[in-house]
Order: sequence, then structure tokens, then C-alpha cells
Amino acid sequence: MTVPRYAPDLVPGTVTLVGGGPGDPGLLTLAGLQAVRQADVILYDRLAPLAVLEEAPEAEKIRVGKVPGGEYVPQERINELLVEHARAGEKVVRLKGGDSFVFGRGGEEWQACAAAGVPVRIIPGVTSSVAGPELAGIPLTHRHMVQGFTVVSGHVAPGDSRSELDWGRLAQCGTTLVILMGVAHIKQISSDLMGGGLAADTPVAVIRQASLPDQSVLTTTLAEVANAMAEAGVRPPAITVVGDVAGLDLDHTEAEERRPSDH
Amino acid sequence: MTVPRYAPDLVPGTVTLVGGGPGDPGLLTLAGLQAVRQADVILYDRLAPLAVLEEAPEAEKIRVGKVPGGEYVPQERINELLVEHARAGEKVVRLKGGDSFVFGRGGEEWQACAAAGVPVRIIPGVTSSVAGPELAGIPLTHRHMVQGFTVVSGHVAPGDSRSELDWGRLAQCGTTLVILMGVAHIKQISSDLMGGGLAADTPVAVIRQASLPDQSVLTTTLAEVANAMAEAGVRPPAITVVGDVAGLDLDHTEAEERRPSDH
Repeated sequence: MTVPRYAPDLVPGTVTLVGGGPGDPGLLTLAGLQAVRQADVILYDRLAPLAVLEEAPEAEKIRVGKVPGGEYVPQERINELLVEHARAGEKVVRLKGGDSFVFGRGGEEWQACAAAGVPVRIIPGVTSSVAGPELAGIPLTHRHMVQGFTVVSGHVAPGDSRSELDWGRLAQCGTTLVILMGVAHIKQISSDLMGGGLAADTPVAVIRQASLPDQSVLTTTLAEVANAMAEAGVRPPAITVVGDVAGLDLDHTEAEERRPSDH
Repeated sequence: MTVPRYAPDLVPGTVTLVGGGPGDPGLLTLAGLQAVRQADVILYDRLAPLAVLEEAPEAEKIRVGKVPGGEYVPQERINELLVEHARAGEKVVRLKGGDSFVFGRGGEEWQACAAAGVPVRIIPGVTSSVAGPELAGIPLTHRHMVQGFTVVSGHVAPGDSRSELDWGRLAQCGTTLVILMGVAHIKQISSDLMGGGLAADTPVAVIRQASLPDQSVLTTTLAEVANAMAEAGVRPPAITVVGDVAGLDLDHTEAEERRPSDH
């Protein structure tokens, strides 16, 4: 196989941001695995594919990030650690869950490294926002059903002064909506989406532990999702998919061929 | 390393849909590589990471999909080939570029296999919609800048009867917009986005050959993008990113810390 451009050897004194995929180590990239194996130090958080750490028995491993109700390493400190270890001449890997650039703070870590004169390289990962639904049999796009998808964070409630999202407008996009970090605020989010025009019976799927042995999928409707999640005891993290594809059963349907020549 | 759930051995008489990532073989997943190595037959198209085919020297390789102005294997025929080879007891791999469920027809292939009683498994891939911008240094989400992104297909022109997208509403979503397959219709698309309220000076980046040695990035504005792409001779496929992050230079900016406690 031709030597991959994105799997060159790590260089001492640099930082490599690795997207680790949704959790199953098989969903790490080849370049990501090679980076982990070559690392002197690995900064990881709880959503990273932890089994992969066994591939770097000699590396120093530093757990960072947030644990709900537990330890907390502020982003500024993570940035400092990346820079400090790189300046010490180490091969630094920052291993994250999903992809570093989808709510992963990868952009901020890149900025911190660049500002400190530390070379930074990025290895994209399988984003949970797509793979989570996919592993539950939900295609975010499906011909003749929907031509796009929107991924947002629900970590602050609609109407909160820190929210930069207009949920009413998101309801009118016409795309499949994927909400990450939305468990805590699902009642307000679903209410705002219905207020924005989405039908109460719009299919909704909630995926937990995507790719892991205890993966679970809850299928419901926009009107029922808050109650259904409460009854099922759904805890973060979870991925919420809103739209017709969330109710599509690929095992018992056929592709629509109303326009054979369309694409 | 714990045996990955998504990299079990292939089973004769089944189809495995593998997302191959944006092109560089290093961005294939470990599970995807294992599937390729075990395949009896591989159906692939031109956007798949072709170097990976060398990993399966004994497998039958069938090129399918579309080549602009050239050969064309209709989706119905691809579906038939998957089913025929599986029914012949082979281990069938369908290798695609990007992720099978992001405009990849993976859902349709799943439906065809399921309808024929052929077991189907899916291995998610690195989607070009995220990785393309990422490899150009563009985070689709960036704290205090934008809390979401929208991925759409621009393969039919706005206003075409086959279009299911409302570009005016997409302009108002407030999310970073990623347009795949939008080269041919960029003039009408950019015009409709401005008509929908997006500012003429909204930053736009056009990424070609993401992850490959000849990757290129064109940075412009919404008002200028059609002319800039014509002048640069941009040909499909390309990924067009519309939004403030398209103009963000991670190498020469600092993360904004206006709300230290926000997330």
C-alpha cells in the first residue's frame, strides 16, 4: 500500500490531534493508530477509544477533560500541557472521541500550539454525529427523503444567553437534525423545534454508547422524546436524531425509484 | 488491544459496506482495512482510497459508480451485483469514498441486501464533509463562533424541480454550511444564499482533493466564489464551506475566552 500522507512518523516537539472515532477501537483510523503507537505522551479524555491506549505501553498517559460531577481539567490547562510536553521535545498525541473539529475543541488546541510556535498536525476521525446514527441503521441523508443534515450542540438550553442557536430556524432547515449533548435540555429543545414548525410526530431516535457493546437505540417522536428519555433513564452522552430518517427501517423498506435518472 | 466489535471476521454470503474516508489510505479505519483484506470481491468507485485495493491482491475487484462523461454503472445494477456475489457465497465488500451514509447511497444498498435476505454490516468512515475542511485547517464548529454545521448536496440547481432544498432557509440556519457536489451550480447557490440573507462578504473556502498530495484550498467570499472558482478552474469534486470558520486562520488567531465557565 502506498505510504499514506497522513501517517508519517511523528516528529519530536510536535502535537498531533487524533480523532479517535465513536469508541470501538476498530473505528480508529490507520494514521491515528500509528500516531498512538509512536507517542511519548498521550492526553486523552473519557470519550476516546480507551482500548487503543494499550497500543502505547511505554507512553505517558494523561487523562484530561471533564467527568460529570468529577475531576475537571480546564481547556486552558490542556492547552498548556500540550505545549509544555512538546517543548520538552516529546512526541505528543491528543486523543479524543469522535473528530477533533466537531465540538472537540481541536481548533482551540491548534490555536494554542500555533501561538506557542509548536507545530501541530491533525488526523481526522470518524465523527460520532454521523457514525452513531449509522450504527443504529439511520442514514442522515437518504435519496428522495432528505438532502442534508445539521449537527448542533444542545449543551446550553434554548433561550439561555449563552446559546447561539435559533432552534425555531433550525426546525425550518429541512435537513435531518443531529443533536449532540442534548440530554439535559431535550424538553425545551423539542418544544422549541415544534414551536418552529416541526410536526409533533416527527420521528426521533436517541442513540447511546454508539459502537460499544452496550449500544442502545430509543425510537420515539418529537412530542414524546422528553418523556421517553426520562422513562428510559437516558443519561449523557447521547445522540438525538430528529427527522424522517430516524423512523426509517432499512430492513423492511425499499429504495424509492420515482426518478430513475436523477442522480 | 481488545478485539474491536466492528472488526469481526467477514462471513461468506454477506455484504460489508465500508466507508473509505476522503482518499488518503491512512484515513481508512482499522475495521475497514480488515474487511478489505478478507474480501473475496470488492466493489469500489473512483472516490474510494484506491491504494487500499493493493491490500487484497487475491480479491476480485469491480469498479462501479459514475465517471463524469465516461462509464456508468446504475445504482440498481450495483445493488444486484452486491446481492449476486453474496448469494454465490462470497465475502463482499463495498468500498466507498467518505462515509456510506453521507450521500453515499449506503442506505439504498442496505435496503437492497435486506430485501434479498443478504445480511449486511456497515463500517462507518471518515466523512469528507468534515475531514475535507479539517485538513484545510477549518473547524466546522468553533466555540464562540458557531455551534453547528449543515451538510447538503448541491448536485441539482436551486429551483430545479428535483431539488428538495430551500437555500433561502439554509442561509438562515446560523450554522456553517458545507456543500458537497456544488461546483456546477455554485453561481445559483451563492446567489440564493445571499438572497436568503447571508452577507456578500461571508467567508467561503473551496477544498479540492482533500487529504491527497494535490490538495488545494481556495479562500474567497460568497459574492466572489462563482467567479473565483471559474478563474481557478475548479472542477468536481470539491467541498465548499460557507461561514465565518471558512475565514478563520488557526495559525494566527487566539481562542476567545469571553465566558470562561461556559462549557
